[in-house]
Amino acid sequence: MRAMLKGIAASDGVVCGQAYRLVEPNLNVERRSITNLDSELNRFHQALEAAVSDIETIKTRATKNLGADSAQVFSAHIAMLQDPELIAAVEANIKDKRINAESALADVATGYETTLQGLTDNPYMQERITDLHDVTKRLTGHLLGITLPDLALVDHPVVVVTHDLVPSDTVSVNTKYILGFITDVGGRTSHSSILARNLNLPAVVGTQNATEQIPDGGTVILNGTRGNVIVQPTVDELAAARRDMQERVANQQRLATLRHHETTSKDGVGVMLAANIGTASDLPSVIENGAEAIGLMRTEFLYMDADQLPTEDEQFNVYRQVVQSMAPRPVVIRTLDIGGDKPLPYLKTKHEDNPFMGERAIRQSLAHQDIFRSQLRALLRASAFGHLRIMFPMIATLDEFRQAKAIYDDERSKLTTAQVPMGKVKVGMMVEVPAAAMLADRFAQEVDFMSVGTNDLIGYTMAADRTNQDVAYLYQPYHPAILRLVDRIIHAGHAAGIPVAMCGEMAGDPIAVPLLLGMGLDEFSMSAGAVLKTRELISQLNAHDLQSLVETALNSASTSQEVITMVQAAVPGVLQK
Amino acid sequence: MRAMLKGIAASDGVVCGQAYRLVEPNLNVERRSITNLDSELNRFHQALEAAVSDIETIKTRATKNLGADSAQVFSAHIAMLQDPELIAAVEANIKDKRINAESALADVATGYETTLQGLTDNPYMQERITDLHDVTKRLTGHLLGITLPDLALVDHPVVVVTHDLVPSDTVSVNTKYILGFITDVGGRTSHSSILARNLNLPAVVGTQNATEQIPDGGTVILNGTRGNVIVQPTVDELAAARRDMQERVANQQRLATLRHHETTSKDGVGVMLAANIGTASDLPSVIENGAEAIGLMRTEFLYMDADQLPTEDEQFNVYRQVVQSMAPRPVVIRTLDIGGDKPLPYLKTKHEDNPFMGERAIRQSLAHQDIFRSQLRALLRASAFGHLRIMFPMIATLDEFRQAKAIYDDERSKLTTAQVPMGKVKVGMMVEVPAAAMLADRFAQEVDFMSVGTNDLIGYTMAADRTNQDVAYLYQPYHPAILRLVDRIIHAGHAAGIPVAMCGEMAGDPIAVPLLLGMGLDEFSMSAGAVLKTRELISQLNAHDLQSLVETALNSASTSQEVITMVQAAVPGVLQK
Repeated sequence: MRAMLKGIAASDGVVCGQAYRLVEPNLNVERRSITNLDSELNRFHQALEAAVSDIETIKTRATKNLGADSAQVFSAHIAMLQDPELIAAVEANIKDKRINAESALADVATGYETTLQGLTDNPYMQERITDLHDVTKRLTGHLLGITLPDLALVDHPVVVVTHDLVPSDTVSVNTKYILGFITDVGGRTSHSSILARNLNLPAVVGTQNATEQIPDGGTVILNGTRGNVIVQPTVDELAAARRDMQERVANQQRLATLRHHETTSKDGVGVMLAANIGTASDLPSVIENGAEAIGLMRTEFLYMDADQLPTEDEQFNVYRQVVQSMAPRPVVIRTLDIGGDKPLPYLKTKHEDNPFMGERAIRQSLAHQDIFRSQLRALLRASAFGHLRIMFPMIATLDEFRQAKAIYDDERSKLTTAQVPMGKVKVGMMVEVPAAAMLADRFAQEVDFMSVGTNDLIGYTMAADRTNQDVAYLYQPYHPAILRLVDRIIHAGHAAGIPVAMCGEMAGDPIAVPLLLGMGLDEFSMSAGAVLKTRELISQLNAHDLQSLVETALNSASTSQEVITMVQAAVPGVLQK
Repeated sequence: MRAMLKGIAASDGVVCGQAYRLVEPNLNVERRSITNLDSELNRFHQALEAAVSDIETIKTRATKNLGADSAQVFSAHIAMLQDPELIAAVEANIKDKRINAESALADVATGYETTLQGLTDNPYMQERITDLHDVTKRLTGHLLGITLPDLALVDHPVVVVTHDLVPSDTVSVNTKYILGFITDVGGRTSHSSILARNLNLPAVVGTQNATEQIPDGGTVILNGTRGNVIVQPTVDELAAARRDMQERVANQQRLATLRHHETTSKDGVGVMLAANIGTASDLPSVIENGAEAIGLMRTEFLYMDADQLPTEDEQFNVYRQVVQSMAPRPVVIRTLDIGGDKPLPYLKTKHEDNPFMGERAIRQSLAHQDIFRSQLRALLRASAFGHLRIMFPMIATLDEFRQAKAIYDDERSKLTTAQVPMGKVKVGMMVEVPAAAMLADRFAQEVDFMSVGTNDLIGYTMAADRTNQDVAYLYQPYHPAILRLVDRIIHAGHAAGIPVAMCGEMAGDPIAVPLLLGMGLDEFSMSAGAVLKTRELISQLNAHDLQSLVETALNSASTSQEVITMVQAAVPGVLQK
C-alpha cells in the first residue's frame, strides 16, 4: 500500500529503486535440549560451510568492488570459521551439555570474548573481538535460517534503508549500485548525511521508522531535496521520479564541465571553493568534484575509529597523505574537536550535563596537552609536504588562542632544533563561539585566518542543540542574527587584511551563498558534493549587486522567512534547501 | 589544628563563630534479636517521649522565631508520634518478631509508606509521607542515642556547615543567630548562594568537603568575599576577623541610611534599583534593603516545591501577594523557566543531551500551552492589585515572542469577556539568547520592555555551562564580547523608546556597574543584599564621565582582565567580586 514517510532532507536528489534493508536481524538464541546428537553436529557443520561460502562470496565481490585491502578482514573471518580449536570447542559443548548448536556457539563465543577482553594491552587481540562478533553473528544467522544483509553483497541498484550508518560503512559503499540512503535517525549534520553528500547520493534521514515501514525489496522514491520517501508509489509518481532522475543526470553532466574552472561571479569576483573532509578516503570525491582546496579536515575520525590514541606517526602518515595529494593547493586541518559530546572510549571522559557547553575541542586540548602536542608535531612534520594551515576549534577568548599558539610555537621550535623539515604554516581559528564572532576585530589582529563554523555558531547563538528534535526548528542559518554575526566576522577579517572562510553547512546552501558573496566571503568550504552546484550558482550571480540585498537583509529583516523571501526576490529561481 | 578550606565566594562579608554542622547523621539500623522484651518496649517508650519533648522544644522556638504558621508542621509530627495505632503496630512487631525497636519501627514505617504511596491522587496523604520520614528519623535517632540537627533549634550565634541548602530551609533561618553558611557543593548561582545574598549573610559554597573537615562546635572564620574558610584560626586571625566584622556592621549601618533614598549618580543621572526574588518569602528582605521595584520574580519555585502543578488560584494568590505588597512599585514576573535542566518531577520530561540548549522556558511554554495559559490567567488576575509586568524567558526569535504575545492577548480577551478585573500590564522579554541580543533593534519595535539576563547570555555567548567546573573560567561577565552585546541591547531599546533593565548577577557587580551606568542602563535588578551597596557606588560615580570608559572598553579591550584594569583605573577603589 502506498505510504509517505517524512524525514530530513540530508542530501539532494530524487531516486527510485528497490529497498535494501540493512537491518540487523533478531538473532536471539533459544536454549534447547537436543535428543539427536549426530543430527545437531551435522547441522552445525552445514552452517559452518554455508557461512564460509557466504563470506567467500562477499570477499570476492568486495575485492572486485572495493579493492584487496578492504577485503582482508574477510580472510580473517574465514580463518576463524576454520579454526579447529573453535570447531572442537563448540562440538564438545553440544555433546557435553546436550544443547542446540546455537547455544553451544554462544557459550563458546562468550568464553573466548572473556579471554580476549583480559588481554587489554594487546590491540591485535582487541580487534579479534570484533571479528568474533561478526563471525558468531553470521554463523548464528545460518543456524537460524536468516541471511545477514551486507552492503558489500549488493550487486544491483538499490536504495539502502537502515537505522543509521556508521563511519566503517563508508568502505563498503559501492556507488555503482547504491542509489541513496534512508535512515531512521540523524539530522543534516549526522555522519550518514555527511557521507551521502560526500558521495553525492540523495538521502533522507531521521524518518523515525523507515526500517519498520519499508519492506525489503519494496519500491521506493527517495526525495532527498524535499526530505520524503514514497513507499509503493503510483505509476504517475514513478514516471515523475524517473524524469527527476534524468534531469539530475543531465545536471550532473552539465556541472561536470565546471570541474576544472575557477570560481568567479558573473561580474568577475573570484572566490575559492573548498571541500570539507573527515578522512583521507574522502580525497577522491574532492578531486572529482573540482574543489580548489580542503577548507576543513576534521581529525576526530582518526581518534574515534581506533581503540587507543593514534601515535604521532600514524597521524603524520594521514596528514602527509592529504597535504601531499592536494599540493600545492592549501589544506586546512582542524585540531582535535572531542570532549563530552564526542567521547573517546579509551579516554576517561567525565559526564557533563551540557557537553556542547563543556570541555570540548581547544578546551580539551589545553587541559590535556600531551594529546594536543603530539597532534601538533604530526601536523608540523606533514607541513613539509605541501601547503598546510592549522586551525583551532571552539576558540572563545584571546587567552585561549594565545595559549594554543604558544604551544604550537614551542613544538615548532623543538622540531627546528631537531632539524626536522617543515613548511610555512598559517595558524588560524574557527569562529563558532558567539563571543569570538563579537570580538572578531580583536582576534583578526593575532590570527592568520578565520573560518566561520556555522553549525556550532548557529547552535550557540540560538541556544538550540541541533540534534534535539524538539528545538531543531531554531537551527536557522538565515536568521538575521546569524547573518549579522557572519557579516561582522567578514568585515573584521578584511579590515585586518586576513582572509575569511566558512566551513559549515551554510557555505553550500543556495539561499545563503548570494548573501555570503555579497558580504565578501573569501572562501566557501562545503561537502564535496555541493562544490559544482555552488560554482555554477556563483557564476550566475552579480556580486556587487548583491551588496544591497545584504544591506536590506541585515538592517530590515526580522525573521528567517523574511530573509528567504528577500533572497528569492533578488535571485529568481534559487531554492531553499 | 588550623586548616584553610577554599571554596566559591558566594555572598560578601567575614564572620567568625562556632560551626553548627547541619548534616544528616548515619541512622542505619542493625537488626538484632532481643531476649528481654520488657526492656525493649521500655526503650521504645522512652525514645517516644524524648522525641515528643524534642519536637515540643523545636515547635516553641520556631513559633517564637518564625511565627505560628511555620510551626504547624511540628504539631502534625507530635500527633503522629502519639498515634495509638502506630505505637501498637511497633509494639506488636517487637513482640512478634522478637527484634529491636529500631528494626520494628523501620518495618512499620515501610508498611505505612507503601500504603500512603498507593493513594497517589490524595495530596494530603502524599504530604504525610514526608512527615512519616521526619518522625521516623527523629525517633530512630533517639533509639540510637543521636541528636538530629535542626536550624530551628539554633539558639546562639553559629556558622552553618552543610552539604547544600534546600529551598525549604529558608523558613527555618533565624538571622538573629545564623551568621553565615558554608556548603560542600554549589556555585555563585545555586540556591544556597542566592538565599545567602537575599539574607545578606556571608557564604562560601563549593568547598567540596567542609562537612568532613569542620568539627561541630569548632571555631571558624568564614570569608565570603574571598571564598575561604579558616578552621581553628590563630589568635591574630581571629582579631583581624573581628575587625572585619565590626567594619561590616559599620558599613551596614552607613548603607542603611540610604534605604529610602532614590538612586542617583553624582552628576544626577537617576536609575532604578530593583531586587530579584524567588518566592513571596523574599519580600521582607526586598523592603528592608530599600529596593525600588521587583525586577525579576522567578516562578519556578512555585512549581518545583510542589508535588503537582500549582492550580491557577494557588498561583494567583502568590502573584497577588507580591504585586499588592509592592504596589504602586512595579513587579516584573517571569513566566515559567523550566525544562530539561530544571525538570518537574510530576511532569514527564524527556532526557536531553544538552538541556541548556533544549526545550526550556518559553519553548516549553509554547509546546505545553495549558500550563502557560493557566499561569498567564493567574498573572492577569493579579494585575488588578498593583503594577505588574510580564516577562517571557529565553526568547530567541520574533516568531516566539509573537506566539507568546498572541496567547497572552487571547487569555486577556477571554478574561475581559468574563468581566474579570485587570490592571494595565506591560509585556516584555528577557534578552538572554545571543540571537535576541543581536536583533534587539527589531525586538524593541514589538516588546514593551527588555531585561538582560546575563547568567544565560554569558553562558551561551561563551558556549560554557557555568555549572561545569571545568569550563567555569569562561563565565566572564566583563568579557568585551559580553559588553558589546549589552551595549547593543541598551542602544536598541533607547532608539525605540523603551526601557532596558538587567536582572542577572552582573547588575550588582561593582566592576560592571560603572560600565552599565556609562552605557545608560535604566534599571538594575539584583539580589536584595546588593541593592544598598550598589546605590552607594552609583552615588559616587559620574555617569557622563563613564561614557569614555565604556568607549575604550568596547573598542580597545581584548580580554576580561583588560576591562577590569580599565575600570579600576577609572573608578579607584572598586574591587572585583
